[in-house]
Amino acid sequence: MITSKSNSRIRNLVTLKKKASERSSQDVFLVEGIKMFREIPAEELVEVYASGSFLKTEAGKSAVEAAEKESEAAWRPDRRPSFQEVSDEVFQALSDTRSPQGIMAVVRQKHYRFEDLLGNAGRPLVMVLENLQDPGNLGTIVRTAEGAGVTGILMSKGTADIYSPKVTRSTMGSIFRMPFLYTDDLAGDIGRMKKAGVTVCAAHLKGKNTYDGEDYTKGTAFLIGNESRGLSDEISEQADVRVRIPMAGRVESLNASIAAAILMYEAGRQRIKMEGKHYGEA
Amino acid sequence: MITSKSNSRIRNLVTLKKKASERSSQDVFLVEGIKMFREIPAEELVEVYASGSFLKTEAGKSAVEAAEKESEAAWRPDRRPSFQEVSDEVFQALSDTRSPQGIMAVVRQKHYRFEDLLGNAGRPLVMVLENLQDPGNLGTIVRTAEGAGVTGILMSKGTADIYSPKVTRSTMGSIFRMPFLYTDDLAGDIGRMKKAGVTVCAAHLKGKNTYDGEDYTKGTAFLIGNESRGLSDEISEQADVRVRIPMAGRVESLNASIAAAILMYEAGRQRIKMEGKHYGEA
Repeated sequence: MITSKSNSRIRNLVTLKKKASERSSQDVFLVEGIKMFREIPAEELVEVYASGSFLKTEAGKSAVEAAEKESEAAWRPDRRPSFQEVSDEVFQALSDTRSPQGIMAVVRQKHYRFEDLLGNAGRPLVMVLENLQDPGNLGTIVRTAEGAGVTGILMSKGTADIYSPKVTRSTMGSIFRMPFLYTDDLAGDIGRMKKAGVTVCAAHLKGKNTYDGEDYTKGTAFLIGNESRGLSDEISEQADVRVRIPMAGRVESLNASIAAAILMYEAGRQRIKMEGKHYGEA
Repeated sequence: MITSKSNSRIRNLVTLKKKASERSSQDVFLVEGIKMFREIPAEELVEVYASGSFLKTEAGKSAVEAAEKESEAAWRPDRRPSFQEVSDEVFQALSDTRSPQGIMAVVRQKHYRFEDLLGNAGRPLVMVLENLQDPGNLGTIVRTAEGAGVTGILMSKGTADIYSPKVTRSTMGSIFRMPFLYTDDLAGDIGRMKKAGVTVCAAHLKGKNTYDGEDYTKGTAFLIGNESRGLSDEISEQADVRVRIPMAGRVESLNASIAAAILMYEAGRQRIKMEGKHYGEA
């Protein structure tokens, strides 16, 4: 059992929590909490840290045992994830939350290709995020995207780090399943999507049609801009269509994750209607 | 100019920021930042605090001058709001943010009646929140509600305090315009709405129809539950209709403010369609 905060593994966890650059160079990220832990694909698990009191609970013990069993099946013995018990005090120091659940894991980062964003059903539904800054917004978009049937998320390099603890937590597990990619050539990659037959839509106050007046049943991408500045002119100009989300009262704009959700679910709604079926009945 | 953090007014501001009970007994709340400040109705303004450096900016000076002029028109001299300059150092200590904009106001609380929630067009669209806990979710729902044409928000007593700084900030000004009411008899008040002809809809995983398969063009209320526990059985049973928001992939639920937004905007969309017009063209 690790009982010291100055243990080198513990110090490394603290660094991984704080620094995007370290997460990137070690090619891993942190996942905390039992709900998220259960969603980690066995082949992506690198290290597991559980507190003494967590391992004493029925749920805790069985979650860790299940992960050990799964990773035995997934890995050669020399590449299996390590399991470590840490004292409650050390765990509290590690944790991002006031009353930590007692389980944390180091997980391998994902490396998707551009093509992965387009799905394999010939009907891409891509969210394009330009310099989105708020971790809660990004995490919520990832979660909602999976729910709405989005095929992938393309982000400018200036977008918040998807591997930061606040983002991963608010994805509620969708980070393990939703393909995403950071690009330093957002305009270029939008161009590639257009060549692949995807219609690019931007939410815009001056859009000609309201958002429910366009057809999203074919390949579609939605552009979502920064929380305060919106889309840059360069990216906005890439849009084939500008759609308006109507706003009553004196509201000037919607929260970025809300605007994204309204667009994604309108696309999902149209696609379900067209197929005459429900999600998940694929 | 106030230069001491131990000034009694400053100490009162700090208390108002932290304590819901004090906000309630003094019948006021705090508003910070220039954007929110500009939205405050003159007749609700009680005190204004501006930092020295804020008053040196063009935008700062003109915002404060405009508020002074408006409140002169709105109030008898003895009831006019007070305007105070505070040192930058004191303002920093007051502020909720790392780089404060330099303007804060004490604003009178609102007191709506139940009837105010139903609007005056004979077609109520009410959001009912049961024990919603996250301030960001609550603020975002208030903001989105105004945008979607919601007529009012009914909240159980256990819902987060709408006057906490985190909530007011994320309403982006909608708190000044959206009617709301806390009730200690949520079930009873839902009953009153039903008697007034409002159809009560709950989002539910086992709903029979998907959310876009119901008609929301007549009086409608949506029930939204707590972030982790959802709706209580008692409140859930009040629903006339259960609707399902489809979820693809392995998503088990959506964020509460996202689910609320999808429902509110579906109602808004149907109402616009029925009227053959756009929001704001009333």
